Amino acid sequence: MSQKLSIVVVEPDRERAILIVDSLRGAGDHKVSVIAEMTGLARHVSNLNPDIVLIDVSSPSRDILEELTLASGPLERPVAMFVDRSDDSLTREAIEAGVSAYVVDGLRPERIKPIMDAAIARFHMFHRIRLELEATKRALEERKVIDRAKGLLMKARGVDEDAAYALLRKTAMDQGRKVVDVAEALVTTAGLLS
Amino acid sequence: MSQKLSIVVVEPDRERAILIVDSLRGAGDHKVSVIAEMTGLARHVSNLNPDIVLIDVSSPSRDILEELTLASGPLERPVAMFVDRSDDSLTREAIEAGVSAYVVDGLRPERIKPIMDAAIARFHMFHRIRLELEATKRALEERKVIDRAKGLLMKARGVDEDAAYALLRKTAMDQGRKVVDVAEALVTTAGLLS
Repeated sequence: MSQKLSIVVVEPDRERAILIVDSLRGAGDHKVSVIAEMTGLARHVSNLNPDIVLIDVSSPSRDILEELTLASGPLERPVAMFVDRSDDSLTREAIEAGVSAYVVDGLRPERIKPIMDAAIARFHMFHRIRLELEATKRALEERKVIDRAKGLLMKARGVDEDAAYALLRKTAMDQGRKVVDVAEALVTTAGLLS
Repeated sequence: MSQKLSIVVVEPDRERAILIVDSLRGAGDHKVSVIAEMTGLARHVSNLNPDIVLIDVSSPSRDILEELTLASGPLERPVAMFVDRSDDSLTREAIEAGVSAYVVDGLRPERIKPIMDAAIARFHMFHRIRLELEATKRALEERKVIDRAKGLLMKARGVDEDAAYALLRKTAMDQGRKVVDVAEALVTTAGLLS
């Protein structure tokens, strides 16, 4: 991590906060903010909009996980969570919520940097596959809508598939819109009128 | 982890192997195998076909990562990798290769169980989204092939879209095949003949 990161440390314990901040300052020229208060966590994190969040809680609660998941915190940026103890189901919930690193009883200042590296790498890898999934889903939905619009045009105007698509594309170009938006409007309208 | 797991521990150091195995035996009634040799790792792991792999290497090398990625090891099952030291780029490569937990300087017997829990949870979460992505890509590809086959039939037989689809479906039913397979065959054949 040679770049300068904006880091939010969520740490209710003042002594531990100081240790962590010192360790981060030693690891690079990062901008570090500390949040000591768990209430309103999602809003505070969202306001600061950091590159990564490190959160240290002795015992993770579902409340904190919910607070993190609100405003899709862990899916928006890497979150590394340090807890003193956990069980199977809390671990699973934290990871399902999108926490990039979930570390049980492992908060030692010298370990923070490699954990941050891993959290950032994992976040980007997961983010990439999520974007790919969204794009593929969108392509499939668009294709369905365009097919339906073509079918409607073929029936209404008695034209073949190529002509139907050409009609959609011409309308889109004339109106400065996307083919899929014209198709969507056509499908919606056809539903209203029939 | 109440269920009985089959665990492979990859550990060249005999003393550490004994510590790890003891800790795992204490954590539940698991079946534990030890591999001390790095060569042929992918094949050995594949033969044993465990629920999870724990691999401890003082320093991770690209060779070991490649060996793990071969036979898509880390994408087939959770892999937790323990290293004494790492850097940004090796960390990123390990995570991109699909390692479910990448732990730098954190191999203490009492920490193995929570790390295994986290690795298993992360593997399942990632596996689910990968399956969803594959299914969505397949649906999109199938739709494209069926659309192309419909278009060919509409042109060749002078029928409308519904009739073209009905033809594909009837052929598929008569032959006990899937619509997409018939469509695929039609598109291939049309390409050959034209």
